[in-house]
Amino acid sequence: MPLMKSWVASANSADTPFPLNNLPYGVFSTAEKSRSLGVAIGDQILDLRGLADAGISAFDALIAGDGPNPFQQTTWNAFMALGSDVWTAFRTTMQQLLAEGATDAGKVSPHLVPQADAQLHMPFDVTEYTDFYAGKNHAMNVGTMFRGPENALPPNWLHIPIGYNGRASSVVVSGTDVQRPWGQLKGPNDDAPRWAPSARFDIELEMGAIVGAPSTGPISVNQADANIFGYVLLNDWSARDIQAWEYQPLGPFQAKATATTISPWIVTAAALAPFRCATPAREKELLPHLRDTGPMLFDIDLEVTLTPAGSTPSTIARTNYNEMYYSAAQQLAHHTTSGCPMRVGDLLGSGTISGPEKENRGSLLELSWGGKEPLTLETGETRSFIEDGDTLTLHGAAKGDGFQVGFGPCTGTILPAATDPFKG
Amino acid sequence: MPLMKSWVASANSADTPFPLNNLPYGVFSTAEKSRSLGVAIGDQILDLRGLADAGISAFDALIAGDGPNPFQQTTWNAFMALGSDVWTAFRTTMQQLLAEGATDAGKVSPHLVPQADAQLHMPFDVTEYTDFYAGKNHAMNVGTMFRGPENALPPNWLHIPIGYNGRASSVVVSGTDVQRPWGQLKGPNDDAPRWAPSARFDIELEMGAIVGAPSTGPISVNQADANIFGYVLLNDWSARDIQAWEYQPLGPFQAKATATTISPWIVTAAALAPFRCATPAREKELLPHLRDTGPMLFDIDLEVTLTPAGSTPSTIARTNYNEMYYSAAQQLAHHTTSGCPMRVGDLLGSGTISGPEKENRGSLLELSWGGKEPLTLETGETRSFIEDGDTLTLHGAAKGDGFQVGFGPCTGTILPAATDPFKG
Repeated sequence: MPLMKSWVASANSADTPFPLNNLPYGVFSTAEKSRSLGVAIGDQILDLRGLADAGISAFDALIAGDGPNPFQQTTWNAFMALGSDVWTAFRTTMQQLLAEGATDAGKVSPHLVPQADAQLHMPFDVTEYTDFYAGKNHAMNVGTMFRGPENALPPNWLHIPIGYNGRASSVVVSGTDVQRPWGQLKGPNDDAPRWAPSARFDIELEMGAIVGAPSTGPISVNQADANIFGYVLLNDWSARDIQAWEYQPLGPFQAKATATTISPWIVTAAALAPFRCATPAREKELLPHLRDTGPMLFDIDLEVTLTPAGSTPSTIARTNYNEMYYSAAQQLAHHTTSGCPMRVGDLLGSGTISGPEKENRGSLLELSWGGKEPLTLETGETRSFIEDGDTLTLHGAAKGDGFQVGFGPCTGTILPAATDPFKG
Repeated sequence: MPLMKSWVASANSADTPFPLNNLPYGVFSTAEKSRSLGVAIGDQILDLRGLADAGISAFDALIAGDGPNPFQQTTWNAFMALGSDVWTAFRTTMQQLLAEGATDAGKVSPHLVPQADAQLHMPFDVTEYTDFYAGKNHAMNVGTMFRGPENALPPNWLHIPIGYNGRASSVVVSGTDVQRPWGQLKGPNDDAPRWAPSARFDIELEMGAIVGAPSTGPISVNQADANIFGYVLLNDWSARDIQAWEYQPLGPFQAKATATTISPWIVTAAALAPFRCATPAREKELLPHLRDTGPMLFDIDLEVTLTPAGSTPSTIARTNYNEMYYSAAQQLAHHTTSGCPMRVGDLLGSGTISGPEKENRGSLLELSWGGKEPLTLETGETRSFIEDGDTLTLHGAAKGDGFQVGFGPCTGTILPAATDPFKG
């Protein structure tokens, strides 16, 4: 698929993450405008609240139905709830209005806002958040460190996408500072657990899949794929020292509850469709209800940069979403097997995406092998885990022929731990 | 504390769960009335939406502020969000209006609805749901069965209230039927996992604590105690065969996602205050931020009955909430240590409440020792786990001098599994 040309000149560059092929959905505000839904195009944002006043019949027809106008809301949840026919109609309309030669360009252009002037907010309310553990290289690496190589991969791992429920209240949008957490932890040389700031604070490079259609019983992998509205980059910040002490037998809890950062633009499943690819060969045949029924992963290049305070970024990992063993559709299908109701706005983290080589690892835990092999940055500094003031950024883009479908950065800066919240 | 007398005659019985001392909060509807907030008193419900038309100045003063009228909503979330001063003022007003000799009794009485005519609904929207594992007898019993007696209690267990995030979308109100789930499971004699209905479906007898005030950073045990609005009975239905296969290493997931049933009336922390009691002696001293600062458990008698289809109830367990090792306040404080934001409507399950003796065990897993020692019901039938058509009911009441503060039943009937959702 080639670049689709737009009358917004900046959208026609091979370098923009947001050509007409993409059209991701976000929520923005400016000095003049309160929060509004927007669609990114090149270096601009199309203001959808403003567009309602433009007298464009194709756009007005989208919101002619009963119920609250989705484009007067401050998140995309109400739009998602309208269902996939509306998702398709809206995307088609946006592509028509923004395409090179569009007759309504003159009516649309007054509602473009430069991204440089906008602040981005959470694009949707996270209803519930689930995090998976579905990248095999990551599971092998972490399992080896936590339980030894013989027990690295649990017996269930090749049969179900292992997941646990996370904390929706902790999900924040890119650009939100993250304060180093306190917690109870017990190092290998400690006689007893201590209350201390985490000394092994880490990232997890993940993709997040957003459930756009509800379900109330078990659904097939195909139905699950159809229910996914779009994708974001997701950094599941993790306090490894808290995690190591707390996670047996019921899984991670406070180690993962400080923050999870998502990129601000929802890249739709429709925009990613040209980049579909298959999951890897199955080492054990899956039970029928979880089997792949087509290419349901996506070929998305991913990268992590670490920028020490006042310094320059170093790329510390490069990998691809196609390294996952399970697709988001398989994860969502598994999530519903027990009858678990799924709702609009549920967010599913893929699990850390690590490739086969050391430089493909999606967490510092893996990159520094638990701190035993500190990483050397391009500036010469070293890192085992995150230090105060470090900015960690995930980058992601699917690469087409002369264009890309990008996500925009997913970034956060680590603030020093507070003084002991229980003293003084 | 003695019985507080009401002009509602049925509220003065030693047997009613809902004397004036209690005044729990629910949501009801009748053939004539759509969902409305209500307060239980004896065998009646005081309709708060109706009461707004009664011209009672003390009640009208409660809702004089800005913002939406909480008594025009269909859940208690908006009321909770008004904060603890309003919680106190409302309870005081209700006790005055319903007390023996109340001058406004004539204005109030037209707004009483017989409980027999009402259907009860979810009393609040569950924002997020967390389940703990904080009863020591239960942890020892289950740990012994899953991991052997040497590894029964994980090393962290005496230092932190172990918890995991559950699934808010699966929480239902008492009386909702629960369908036996399908799932992936692998028995000890299976070569490979199978897709099958759960054959070891179980209950967990718990108390649920409802967060009524939000927090954004670590809070003390005292603050946590103050933030808890009230309590419900909670049955955390559990598919033991799914759980055994899936739970390593990230904890229970689909095994606990079919349903969690809560009792329909929120019994406030204020109503339970006379029944406060201490946690048991500490086997290891807790770190300062988790230490008990006063009696924060409650002396609440608990009971489980099992009623086979078309048969009579058998009591299968009797225990008390005072068997917990950690209070809900300690659980909530721990929940916030990493900075995890807590929101109005968050629900915290205590973990299964088992006493020291066999008849005090709060799950069939424990009562039948994993199916090895089937239980004999009063009818002569036996049970290892739940059979189709069984109705499981939790009962709970704090016992005062000539009165009780009760919860009303927390009940659910198990429907047979659906035909294979992925066949035909």
